[in-house]
Amino acid sequence: MSVPAWPSHGGQSASLLAHFDLPMDHPLEDFSANLNPFGPPVWVNARVMEELAGLQRYPVPDYAAARRAIADHHQLTPDQVLLTNGGAEAIFLAAALHAGQRAAVITPSFGEYARACRAHRLSVNEIPLAAPDFRLRLDALLSSLDDIEVLFLCRPNNPTATLIDRDAMQVLLERTATQGCCVVVDEAFIDMAGDTPAEVSLTAYLGRYPHLILLHSLTKFFTLPGLRLGYLLADRATINAAAAHQPPWSVNHIAAQLVTPLLADKAFAERTRQWITLERPRMAVALAQLGLEVVPSQACFFLIRPGAGHTINSDELFERLLRRGVLVRHTHNFAGLDGEWLRLALRDAPVNQRLLKALHDCLR
Amino acid sequence: MSVPAWPSHGGQSASLLAHFDLPMDHPLEDFSANLNPFGPPVWVNARVMEELAGLQRYPVPDYAAARRAIADHHQLTPDQVLLTNGGAEAIFLAAALHAGQRAAVITPSFGEYARACRAHRLSVNEIPLAAPDFRLRLDALLSSLDDIEVLFLCRPNNPTATLIDRDAMQVLLERTATQGCCVVVDEAFIDMAGDTPAEVSLTAYLGRYPHLILLHSLTKFFTLPGLRLGYLLADRATINAAAAHQPPWSVNHIAAQLVTPLLADKAFAERTRQWITLERPRMAVALAQLGLEVVPSQACFFLIRPGAGHTINSDELFERLLRRGVLVRHTHNFAGLDGEWLRLALRDAPVNQRLLKALHDCLR
Repeated sequence: MSVPAWPSHGGQSASLLAHFDLPMDHPLEDFSANLNPFGPPVWVNARVMEELAGLQRYPVPDYAAARRAIADHHQLTPDQVLLTNGGAEAIFLAAALHAGQRAAVITPSFGEYARACRAHRLSVNEIPLAAPDFRLRLDALLSSLDDIEVLFLCRPNNPTATLIDRDAMQVLLERTATQGCCVVVDEAFIDMAGDTPAEVSLTAYLGRYPHLILLHSLTKFFTLPGLRLGYLLADRATINAAAAHQPPWSVNHIAAQLVTPLLADKAFAERTRQWITLERPRMAVALAQLGLEVVPSQACFFLIRPGAGHTINSDELFERLLRRGVLVRHTHNFAGLDGEWLRLALRDAPVNQRLLKALHDCLR
Repeated sequence: MSVPAWPSHGGQSASLLAHFDLPMDHPLEDFSANLNPFGPPVWVNARVMEELAGLQRYPVPDYAAARRAIADHHQLTPDQVLLTNGGAEAIFLAAALHAGQRAAVITPSFGEYARACRAHRLSVNEIPLAAPDFRLRLDALLSSLDDIEVLFLCRPNNPTATLIDRDAMQVLLERTATQGCCVVVDEAFIDMAGDTPAEVSLTAYLGRYPHLILLHSLTKFFTLPGLRLGYLLADRATINAAAAHQPPWSVNHIAAQLVTPLLADKAFAERTRQWITLERPRMAVALAQLGLEVVPSQACFFLIRPGAGHTINSDELFERLLRRGVLVRHTHNFAGLDGEWLRLALRDAPVNQRLLKALHDCLR
């Protein structure tokens, strides 16, 4: 199926409605963007209003207060932190550090790693994960890295929702250390991986592996993607090199000012954790009971496709759901998926129930 | 004089106060950042508050509405417009288009052109403008461009406040067209150059010269530098190439939503134009009457230094002004000035009077 008019990211309902000749006011519930359903924290609007006067000044270029808050949050030092204009800029800066070199990316994964590499003239080797479980075979990965200078991973991986375990990551980091291959790990969804972040994040490895770069987003967990706020963690020399590639004042004043209070909101983080712990296994079972094939998820979304008992394919299911007012994420522009699967964001329980009802009706 | 602790941009009072052992609550009037003293428009805060709910969604990546507003403003088409995360990102994208090539920059000028070139591994030739008038000698410039692939200009030029006239620009564009040298012109201050923008901007040349790239900022004219909002104008092929180097969602939702109403505020633009027309010549005369050497200004700032009749140098004047509560811009990190000059932003009349009084007292 050719889908030239389909948007390349989630959450873009207008172009999809036009594509399917649906009216612009067609009611839609959005399961296409992987955002925390509980955010933003209730205090955010009031805090933004307090910061409006600051828009009249340039941000202080080194964002010292925000970097200190992030460093404290991860038990790092501020010189291991670079604030970025969303996680997207962090990806492009990681690629810029290796301009002209040889990169490897996993497929399927977030398409911006390959796009950032092409922008900075890296060659891109694709290392495929195979359906139906999309598990990373560590031996196969290691044997693919012989002449690779930078490897991009996403943990948990978007869109498969799979998570490379820490033991495998440690083996990978030991091997790549000796061969001089930089490892970039996008942890944009790590805080919604379910276990405590300390158990799954790789931040504790930064001191040991200077060839490790971690990318983070704050706007998925706090549901502020329109604000643009992310960061890059690495050793000091890498941070300095990345900063040299970054335009000045790259992070807007409001985003920079929100870093400290967002990271301090432990109640919000705890509520999110409870939701993931309860709602993800419940939805995994419910989706399987509909006869869908479900990739085991360690993230805040599911990769699914119609099962052997269904006569409908993913494109048909996507369109039926859209006409019923349910927007999910097609996978036509994920290399290695090519539209055969759909990605569903996990929402809060009542909204998830409506998704299950819509899926039930559309799969019949 | 070595000034390692001095900040590299205007408006950063905290590090300067620390450098001179002044208390953090030392009162300061800021003449160091080139911002419109009348902004932001009074309606901005209310509009921002209306847009807060949009922070919970990703921006639509192509920013179609904002690009159309900019295109209409300049009588261009939207495919000649790329929205950017401030003028600074536009500079870095212009450099990225020429990675690894040979660039030329004027000195003294805004330091980010050379920094962006280094980040993208361009070699950088410096073409010096000579004191005391810092006038561009077109013949000398043209003879310096033999093997140059991209030339960065700033019009009016920061920090000299000089403006290359349109006739000279046309000669330059004709010559560079035949030799295949791209010309990047930063028009960040063009709307405060004083004549009507139609008379001084180069936007009308875009259709004729596909090797011309214009960089714009909206946050200096509208006094919203903390928001981050700029754009790049060029022919469609260049826009597409620049977009391929830009991270997705690079412009935050609030900035994107403000483009249309900002450009529609004709009363604000008119008030700003009247201020420039009246206040700039008045201040040029008053500064000269203090015995200062003043570069003729076609921008919203002045480059000055103590005159032959003064025994004080610019560093001493800077410090005396700071201790008196007046922050001006040192020029230690402008190649070609090296601290010998000071840059003074033009403010509204009563504030400018206080600057004149302080200068008068400090020069004695």
